[in-house]
Amino acid sequence: MPTLKEIQKAHSRIKPFIHNTPVLTNSSLDHLSQAELFFKCENFQKAGSFKIRGATNAVLQLSEEDLYKGVATASSGNHGAALSMAVTALGGKTKVVMPNNTPDIKIRNVKRNGGQIIWCEPNQISRDKALREVLEDTGSILVHPYNDNHIICGQGTTSLELMDECPDLDILITPVSGGGLLGGTLCYAKEKNKNIQVYGAEPMEADDAYRSLLSGEIQSNETTNTICDGLRAQIGTITFPIIRDKVNGIIPISEKDIISTMKMIWERMKIIVEPSCAIALAAVLNNKNIFSDKKVGLILSGGNVDLDQLPWFD
Amino acid sequence: MPTLKEIQKAHSRIKPFIHNTPVLTNSSLDHLSQAELFFKCENFQKAGSFKIRGATNAVLQLSEEDLYKGVATASSGNHGAALSMAVTALGGKTKVVMPNNTPDIKIRNVKRNGGQIIWCEPNQISRDKALREVLEDTGSILVHPYNDNHIICGQGTTSLELMDECPDLDILITPVSGGGLLGGTLCYAKEKNKNIQVYGAEPMEADDAYRSLLSGEIQSNETTNTICDGLRAQIGTITFPIIRDKVNGIIPISEKDIISTMKMIWERMKIIVEPSCAIALAAVLNNKNIFSDKKVGLILSGGNVDLDQLPWFD
Repeated sequence: MPTLKEIQKAHSRIKPFIHNTPVLTNSSLDHLSQAELFFKCENFQKAGSFKIRGATNAVLQLSEEDLYKGVATASSGNHGAALSMAVTALGGKTKVVMPNNTPDIKIRNVKRNGGQIIWCEPNQISRDKALREVLEDTGSILVHPYNDNHIICGQGTTSLELMDECPDLDILITPVSGGGLLGGTLCYAKEKNKNIQVYGAEPMEADDAYRSLLSGEIQSNETTNTICDGLRAQIGTITFPIIRDKVNGIIPISEKDIISTMKMIWERMKIIVEPSCAIALAAVLNNKNIFSDKKVGLILSGGNVDLDQLPWFD
Repeated sequence: MPTLKEIQKAHSRIKPFIHNTPVLTNSSLDHLSQAELFFKCENFQKAGSFKIRGATNAVLQLSEEDLYKGVATASSGNHGAALSMAVTALGGKTKVVMPNNTPDIKIRNVKRNGGQIIWCEPNQISRDKALREVLEDTGSILVHPYNDNHIICGQGTTSLELMDECPDLDILITPVSGGGLLGGTLCYAKEKNKNIQVYGAEPMEADDAYRSLLSGEIQSNETTNTICDGLRAQIGTITFPIIRDKVNGIIPISEKDIISTMKMIWERMKIIVEPSCAIALAAVLNNKNIFSDKKVGLILSGGNVDLDQLPWFD
């Protein structure tokens, strides 16, 4: 399990390659939530999401020989784009296995950053098979999107920066998908401040983390019919034990609440966030018993939205 | 004509009531424009645009007696919302004459800030008539959206903050409609740094400032068929002489370029800007002969967009 010290080291390692993104506040959302909200804006991050943190941390620790072999991953988009950016910057090649229902903007982001896309069906079995084939056929090195300690350490640097800027937070909340961001957040925040509470927010339509936590064992999603294209992955074997041992709770959110909260953030904060990241505010607004009168840090995880496919027009 | 000193005084006066908005940069837009761009983000301003600056400066100089009579204005929306916010905060009442094709979000903003709306047709004659009737019938005090030295001084504080943060800008560019923002920018910037160039950007479909500058006399718009609902007003008798004497040029922009640039800002900067404010970047991208290799300050004037009516779906 990553330690605070390892996450601090990761931060020193990746700092020259990432943005220290701003923390925004908004009085009308404070009023609505009856809490004091601090939004860590990873939608302004390089390649449009926090994923560049973990990817950079992992890639900087590859040997030259491994980099020369090429790097591969499976990703719904943001990790793929981030990994491609990090690998291309070091002169390597990236292959990204992506589901064939990925939004256009995420496809373009991977391509613009020099990644090569290998298509799969939008389910875990097809994804695993395609990735296995790429690894076997090309000898590429796998950089997993979340089930990897280097990735978890990298994602943990988001809360390092947030807690540096806002040292007296009572609660942190992040979206949860494969668990890299939530895992890294838990490892850093709970060691830094033993009183802090940490929650994950997850779509009801892909609530494997919620059900896994309830049952104590990893559960899978039979379907992932959620607008949150970044939150369809399955909780990992490395990330799950961290979450099980440390998290204060996983909060499942309906599609309707995700979409209306995303629109609310756009209208009131004047920033573009993707559905996968609006979910954290939706959890806060729907659970006043947990969050009211608290100082709450929310990680706005990314801003890669296809502007031609906005959910409130569906 | 407002002086640098008056604008500095206005800034001290309004400072406690406004945000000092952030200045953002974006490496991909720098690359595309071949310039160094500094975006002053008034889309994050209170009531969603720079208009709160002028409105606050004007309202704070009203006598208690005048405030008691009530305040009235004609506005396509942003000035109306800003004036309502400023007046309501001091306990007064605001009447806002608005064209009946104003986007919903701007209507809601006026109402939320306590303003009362009086509808008119979307043309200058109907607007003037409705406003005259309100003033005569109610004895309200007029706070004009731009043709007023207090307003011009208030709007000029935007470039005061921008030039404080980025002291070595070569060029400033703002949208132009009635001329309050451009006028205030010219009065401040040209006195602060005699070498700075200042441009205005205007829709081709409402290019009265451009034609007025060419002819040396105020010209009117026969139609204002532009997506920029904030840029349909007519250049003013107080603002025009400032612009005529000081501006380096007015750049007319097509609707197509305004819309594609607005989408580009959303996608690359992950911030919500209204069409009226995307126009400044469109002018920079279309005029490399003026802007390339320069440090350019762009005033992103506002972020009040109706998210149910996005122009790229039309």
